[in-house]
Amino acid sequence: MINRRTFASRALTASLAASLAPQLFSNTSPNNTANVRLGFIGVGGRGTGLLKTLLEMEGVQFPAICDVLEKNLTAALDLVEKSGRPRPEAYQRGPYDFQRFLKRDDLQGVIIATPWRWHIPMSIAALDAGKAVACEVGPANSTGECWDLVRAAESSNTPCMILENACYRRNMMALLRMVREGLLGEVVQCRGGYLHDLRKRIVLGKGTGVTLPTGGDYRTRQNQIRNADIYPTHGLGPLAQILDINRGNRFVSLTAHATKSRGLQSWTQRNLPSDHPAHKYDWAMGDIVTSTIECQNGENILLTHDCALPRPKSFDWQVQGTQGIYNEVADGIHVEGRSPGHRWEPFDSYQSEFEHPVWQQYLKIGVRGGHDGADFLELSAFVEALRQKRPVPLDVYDMASWRAIAPLSEQSIALGGQPVPFPDLTNGKWMNRKPSFGIA
Amino acid sequence: MINRRTFASRALTASLAASLAPQLFSNTSPNNTANVRLGFIGVGGRGTGLLKTLLEMEGVQFPAICDVLEKNLTAALDLVEKSGRPRPEAYQRGPYDFQRFLKRDDLQGVIIATPWRWHIPMSIAALDAGKAVACEVGPANSTGECWDLVRAAESSNTPCMILENACYRRNMMALLRMVREGLLGEVVQCRGGYLHDLRKRIVLGKGTGVTLPTGGDYRTRQNQIRNADIYPTHGLGPLAQILDINRGNRFVSLTAHATKSRGLQSWTQRNLPSDHPAHKYDWAMGDIVTSTIECQNGENILLTHDCALPRPKSFDWQVQGTQGIYNEVADGIHVEGRSPGHRWEPFDSYQSEFEHPVWQQYLKIGVRGGHDGADFLELSAFVEALRQKRPVPLDVYDMASWRAIAPLSEQSIALGGQPVPFPDLTNGKWMNRKPSFGIA
Repeated sequence: MINRRTFASRALTASLAASLAPQLFSNTSPNNTANVRLGFIGVGGRGTGLLKTLLEMEGVQFPAICDVLEKNLTAALDLVEKSGRPRPEAYQRGPYDFQRFLKRDDLQGVIIATPWRWHIPMSIAALDAGKAVACEVGPANSTGECWDLVRAAESSNTPCMILENACYRRNMMALLRMVREGLLGEVVQCRGGYLHDLRKRIVLGKGTGVTLPTGGDYRTRQNQIRNADIYPTHGLGPLAQILDINRGNRFVSLTAHATKSRGLQSWTQRNLPSDHPAHKYDWAMGDIVTSTIECQNGENILLTHDCALPRPKSFDWQVQGTQGIYNEVADGIHVEGRSPGHRWEPFDSYQSEFEHPVWQQYLKIGVRGGHDGADFLELSAFVEALRQKRPVPLDVYDMASWRAIAPLSEQSIALGGQPVPFPDLTNGKWMNRKPSFGIA
Repeated sequence: MINRRTFASRALTASLAASLAPQLFSNTSPNNTANVRLGFIGVGGRGTGLLKTLLEMEGVQFPAICDVLEKNLTAALDLVEKSGRPRPEAYQRGPYDFQRFLKRDDLQGVIIATPWRWHIPMSIAALDAGKAVACEVGPANSTGECWDLVRAAESSNTPCMILENACYRRNMMALLRMVREGLLGEVVQCRGGYLHDLRKRIVLGKGTGVTLPTGGDYRTRQNQIRNADIYPTHGLGPLAQILDINRGNRFVSLTAHATKSRGLQSWTQRNLPSDHPAHKYDWAMGDIVTSTIECQNGENILLTHDCALPRPKSFDWQVQGTQGIYNEVADGIHVEGRSPGHRWEPFDSYQSEFEHPVWQQYLKIGVRGGHDGADFLELSAFVEALRQKRPVPLDVYDMASWRAIAPLSEQSIALGGQPVPFPDLTNGKWMNRKPSFGIA
């Protein structure tokens, strides 16, 4: 069943695919909407959201979907069927059924939206099976795992994309354009992070449908046993574009510090009945983890993870160069010779002048989907890369190096704030790779 | 000659002295304005500003003033004379004439407002001569010098105060009260710094009257030869009060990073004629220096030095606890259970409710003097401490440990971001000392 909105949206998508920057959308004719066959591993809250966004696109088929929870799986199969596509085949024989799922020969790519610790092992398995990967964000379990991921992508010669929607946010794409056009001069420092009060979510683990024997869900568990920046990529992704990371620049070292751990305990004491098991949880995670990443070209990045304290949500973005500065908290920009005095100007006043071409087109056809429209763009980028057999824009080196921040920050914190070397997961390819994200 | 304003101000000062918190002002009768005899070393721009503020106070006399520049010195002597006081004796026989000056037996205290590298050596000389010290802010030359300063104050049993006006700022004193009353819960992290576009000032060194053979002035020179947070105390001072540093808590380690150095060079290229000598300066200083200071009680402090890039001025203050957060850039506060949603409230709406008692009184008599009125408060605190023979509120341990951040950050940066131990300049006294700043 195709409702009017979906139909209109599909038509728009075809138009979008024809007109937008070729990296994101097709530069071929509107008729070139050859079917792309995708599978899903994980259709919980986030996976379902991605599926809904993909169902709005022309020429995307879903032969099979895999999930451990029947309820989630059935809902996803229903969604696909209701969109007018054939009902996908279900894979639900426990946590390792994705291995059987990956043996299918009709999947070009798989979307992975499972709990964090499965992301990279599943991505490796998919690449080994020759399936292109689009994987949700989260931490790596170890740096070794990041190497394994890179080797799997290289040896299979198969695309692997990290679904970092923050890279596609409207303001950050405009900012990227500003930087590339030299508005801020030479950039010397960036700040970013994930600062989001998730106390209830972390302690109770609600919303995922899976409760671990230790209480809560995967996010609860990570906070119980790790002291690290376990969610580095939202803050980092757009900054990595601005600094050409893995494309002429790279992360060289990382130093991290954690504050004491008080926020989750304090929230529990004040909000849960005295017999709730959460009163007995030990939290390894410091309330605020700050990492400083030094880059090859002399810049550094300050990255913050701050999810266990009450606060307004923020990505804490700041980009500072020799001729200007952007700051997200101020929602402002200051450009030498243009901004009056030493004052912030509203970022809004620069947004339209420096609108990224991708967003210029996107605004014309209508913004849709989650994360202020960014989800649609990241998924379009993946679909078009498969369709046109082009490289994915946020690739395996990005995924591996961004997610490596979790174990690296863990190591630095455990060493009392020692800098740890950042492995060059490109094995030197960063020296010759060229910036590509958002470039027509 | 006493003009009407000065007369009224003096009367108000006496009233202020009688009514304000005894730490800052006298709790004795209005008649207890026994003369306090102060000398000055350094009456350039900043020293003159301090002198003018002191001249508004009752019962402060200036028997002698020392400066290497006759022009500055004469102007200062004139100012004192015009206030109706006797003309001070002049000391101007070169850079070491302060040693002769310190041999006078009629000075209870000296104000030191010379270029940075002289601050601690002059303070030590003054303490050795039994003169109480009120010293302007800046970096230490070395950690050894910080130890020497502490030993000089301890062995002479003489007060030594750092004139950190930021501690007396209205918003930061209100914030201190909020923290002490538990509004933000248990504080786990603070941010602060000195983020001020001083490019022209650094490159040209204008405004001090002394040009070094290497070009510019002391600030120019520090940027040429040091890569460190050379101006740590404005950002840090109020945070040190909030975290009870040296009073139940202490700095344990410091890790620092510097970005590449581009800002001063870039400004020079775009603003100075091609034959200006500044084109040949080498700048050692990274454009942005960030330090993370770990504290004994599990908090950390992120401190920023950022003076070589165009930007709105900021102290970058943020104080975050288990139940709330203050952020200077947002000019906002968020308090759990009080602020609506996950949003900032204007700090203004909390300012009057949590007005610090010192400022409650100060607002009644009228705010005056530099740094939004903070200079008058810091100098009153020094004068009253001498008059009442009470400890100074920002003492030698504060001065030594805050200024030590310069050489410690220098070492950490030179070591590639290694954490360096923060010396306990109290030799364990921090364990038993009690918070005193702003406490009636």
